[in-house]
Amino acid sequence: MSFDLVLFGGTGDLAWRKLLPALLQAHRHGSLPAGARIIGVARDALDDAQYRAWIGQRLAEVEHDKRPCDAEFASFAQLLHYQRMDLSQPQDYQALKARLAEHSAEVVVLYLATAPQLFTTACEQLGAAGLVTPQTRVVLEKPLGHDLASNRAINAAVRRVFSEQQIFRIDHYLGKPAVQNLLALRFGNTLFEPLWRRETIASMEITIAEQLGVQRRGEFYDSTGALRDMVQNHALQLLCAIAMEPPINAHADAIRDEKLKVLRSLTPWSAASLAQDVVRGQYGSGTLAGERVPGYLQEPGVSPGSQTETFVALRTGISNWRWAGVPFYLRTGKRLAAHEAHIAIHLRPTPHAIYRTPLSSANRLVIHLQPRDGLALHLFAAASETSGARALAQAPMLAPVQLDLDFEHRFGSQRVGAYERLLLDVIAGRLNLFVRADEQEAAWRWVEPIMQSWEEQNARGEGPRPYAAGTWGPGAASALVARDGNTWIEEC
Amino acid sequence: MSFDLVLFGGTGDLAWRKLLPALLQAHRHGSLPAGARIIGVARDALDDAQYRAWIGQRLAEVEHDKRPCDAEFASFAQLLHYQRMDLSQPQDYQALKARLAEHSAEVVVLYLATAPQLFTTACEQLGAAGLVTPQTRVVLEKPLGHDLASNRAINAAVRRVFSEQQIFRIDHYLGKPAVQNLLALRFGNTLFEPLWRRETIASMEITIAEQLGVQRRGEFYDSTGALRDMVQNHALQLLCAIAMEPPINAHADAIRDEKLKVLRSLTPWSAASLAQDVVRGQYGSGTLAGERVPGYLQEPGVSPGSQTETFVALRTGISNWRWAGVPFYLRTGKRLAAHEAHIAIHLRPTPHAIYRTPLSSANRLVIHLQPRDGLALHLFAAASETSGARALAQAPMLAPVQLDLDFEHRFGSQRVGAYERLLLDVIAGRLNLFVRADEQEAAWRWVEPIMQSWEEQNARGEGPRPYAAGTWGPGAASALVARDGNTWIEEC
Repeated sequence: MSFDLVLFGGTGDLAWRKLLPALLQAHRHGSLPAGARIIGVARDALDDAQYRAWIGQRLAEVEHDKRPCDAEFASFAQLLHYQRMDLSQPQDYQALKARLAEHSAEVVVLYLATAPQLFTTACEQLGAAGLVTPQTRVVLEKPLGHDLASNRAINAAVRRVFSEQQIFRIDHYLGKPAVQNLLALRFGNTLFEPLWRRETIASMEITIAEQLGVQRRGEFYDSTGALRDMVQNHALQLLCAIAMEPPINAHADAIRDEKLKVLRSLTPWSAASLAQDVVRGQYGSGTLAGERVPGYLQEPGVSPGSQTETFVALRTGISNWRWAGVPFYLRTGKRLAAHEAHIAIHLRPTPHAIYRTPLSSANRLVIHLQPRDGLALHLFAAASETSGARALAQAPMLAPVQLDLDFEHRFGSQRVGAYERLLLDVIAGRLNLFVRADEQEAAWRWVEPIMQSWEEQNARGEGPRPYAAGTWGPGAASALVARDGNTWIEEC
Repeated sequence: MSFDLVLFGGTGDLAWRKLLPALLQAHRHGSLPAGARIIGVARDALDDAQYRAWIGQRLAEVEHDKRPCDAEFASFAQLLHYQRMDLSQPQDYQALKARLAEHSAEVVVLYLATAPQLFTTACEQLGAAGLVTPQTRVVLEKPLGHDLASNRAINAAVRRVFSEQQIFRIDHYLGKPAVQNLLALRFGNTLFEPLWRRETIASMEITIAEQLGVQRRGEFYDSTGALRDMVQNHALQLLCAIAMEPPINAHADAIRDEKLKVLRSLTPWSAASLAQDVVRGQYGSGTLAGERVPGYLQEPGVSPGSQTETFVALRTGISNWRWAGVPFYLRTGKRLAAHEAHIAIHLRPTPHAIYRTPLSSANRLVIHLQPRDGLALHLFAAASETSGARALAQAPMLAPVQLDLDFEHRFGSQRVGAYERLLLDVIAGRLNLFVRADEQEAAWRWVEPIMQSWEEQNARGEGPRPYAAGTWGPGAASALVARDGNTWIEEC
């Protein structure tokens, strides 16, 4: 299938740090047809050769295993082209149109890797210039708005030009192999689905813990915060994947219909649950991996006295037959004790215990999303501690055992990275791993009461709870789950 | 706890090949209290020192990892004693009585590792000599009879002298860590029990495959055959462990009550099922591990034209609410392609498939009993074969993945071997892993119609089906499961 991929923001960080390395990987895997064009678009005055050279320099800076050797880059560079554009200038769109007409590819992907405030203008101009045809697809990077109203406004503007079937809203968590495997595990196996319900499951936990601080993104982050940056999108998408009903088929809308039902079934917030079931935090200085790191308020770009949260933990539920009464815990934060994301499914203890058991005796399935991705199934076996003097005295005891699956180890170099997966899906027109407008809106609708309650707290002088960098966040996050008799998984 | 363990047959193969190495291992593990005595009994004129020396020579012949170093044996040998006895002579029992009186141990274990035809006499004489007290326990090795009537006769004779609580009938398969773990997995975990029923499980398979022939036991084996040697005891005990209802507690009789219920629920044989659902075979010459091996009829001790089976495969069911309609396949044989025993739980395929799947797409849990013992859980994950040209064309596909647990790797040197486990349990008075008389009788009652149908076949000149040594038995065994659309697991 021939395609042109137009990369708006073609000299930006996202382009050279994530998208071009992913396309290079797809090229290595033989997934990009000959004759495909990747057209970088930016305001700089460059020609194709200069763009190739510049990208070549940038790719030499990326992580070692993504860095191309000279021959690889030479081959990949043939796909790279450049088009200078000022997105506010209608005539520049005509130039792009002429460029695309040279090729008349079967698929034209317009990837908006630009500042989000340009999305509305760009879409309008693309439409006005006649650049949107049935062959066109548009890719939008987050954030799509900062609340329900602004999200709706962007989606409405995009929808005036593109049909929903042409719109690919990226949530790169959905491209992670472990997340795709979550659906495959649930709906490609008999083993789990009969257990996947309130009768067997005690609680669900989603943790996305980062060790990084805000890095060079202080200004952006300070106007965003953890709730908008991580919970409204990534954490809720993971929650949809673990909680959804079996879809009727594997097509995009069948899956997205089920995810939407989950978002609409999330327990609505009340004044009481907002006060008891949501914890926000902000990191102070601390020690991480043996090094002192500054607190959030000392980070460049952060406004003095900022009350932006860098940590959120919350407890919610899903009001339907499958999940009524099962707590769902979400937690995310920066400068935490580990760089680690997982989903943990905690099973109930056995209804009747006939063995002596260790302190914590419930099974759990942990889906590791990063840094490694895989599964760990925590079970109990008969302990062999019956050697020694106790051998003659005691009844059988259970000992914890663990069954592991490491996807990298299993699938090795065949493994397709998150952005590679998502880019290939855009080209192939597969919407499964992209977020529909109504999902985004349902997610914003659910997080808005939290944002409002925090504004009220801020007005009363109650800010986020402080926590030291390098810890697992404010103690109140532990208390949140301890009320139900639970603990977060905190193995580093 | 002080004990005397009296080993009748103290110079026999079982004693020095299995029981004394197991006791040595228990000694290494620190499980035998100081002052414990192991009293070998046989007809040879030996004193304690000569017995110790003779056992020392024998132990130098056992498998490398069970062989003691000099210091270990010197320490272990302190426990060894010897008593000369002719089991037909009443006065010899008085001598044993005097020997036991020296010590007045808290527990006296009488281990009958002798020819089974001596069991009845020995028990009568032990009773008559006043050697049976509430402190006494008796251990019986198989075979206990060759049919229901002879089994009942032996059990009745033993029960005239010992109460059922004093009788430890050995089935050494029950001592294997993987078998004990079967109960722990089922009843110490929430994960499996909800799946462990007809709604989720398609079929159950038990395979005990040996590569060995009859070795030096030709004469014994020829009068026994695979059904009596393996199916009536080991295979049916394994079947009980996978099929039983949850016991009310982990005490011996609670577990044995449930196993008995399974044996009584086995689908009774009819003329039709005896003809269709049972396959017997006898090995001919063949090639095993690159070497030519003789056929059964050429083995020393086997009578010319023998119709004894060296292979059995059968299909049965359990007539209760949990298992109605689920086929249970049992298979055992000598000179097969692999030395391998396993229990495989085959789950049904997913009720509704939304992914493209490989040919065989059902989950299974395999419990490996030998040569290694562990678990393998066979699942499906999302394949990453979406690289290459197909990446742009195809819908998601499932790929098989496997989660493994190796008990040796997990528990290492703490691991307690089968005979060690069983001997410690006898000393501790734990009957959980021993077979009650009513279980044995129920098992004999169920296998007798098979033996009778074979006798009728023999009379009509229809003998066992031939199979070449080094194969997986007669083709009819494959046909047996193929009728249900199934296959045996045959990975070596």
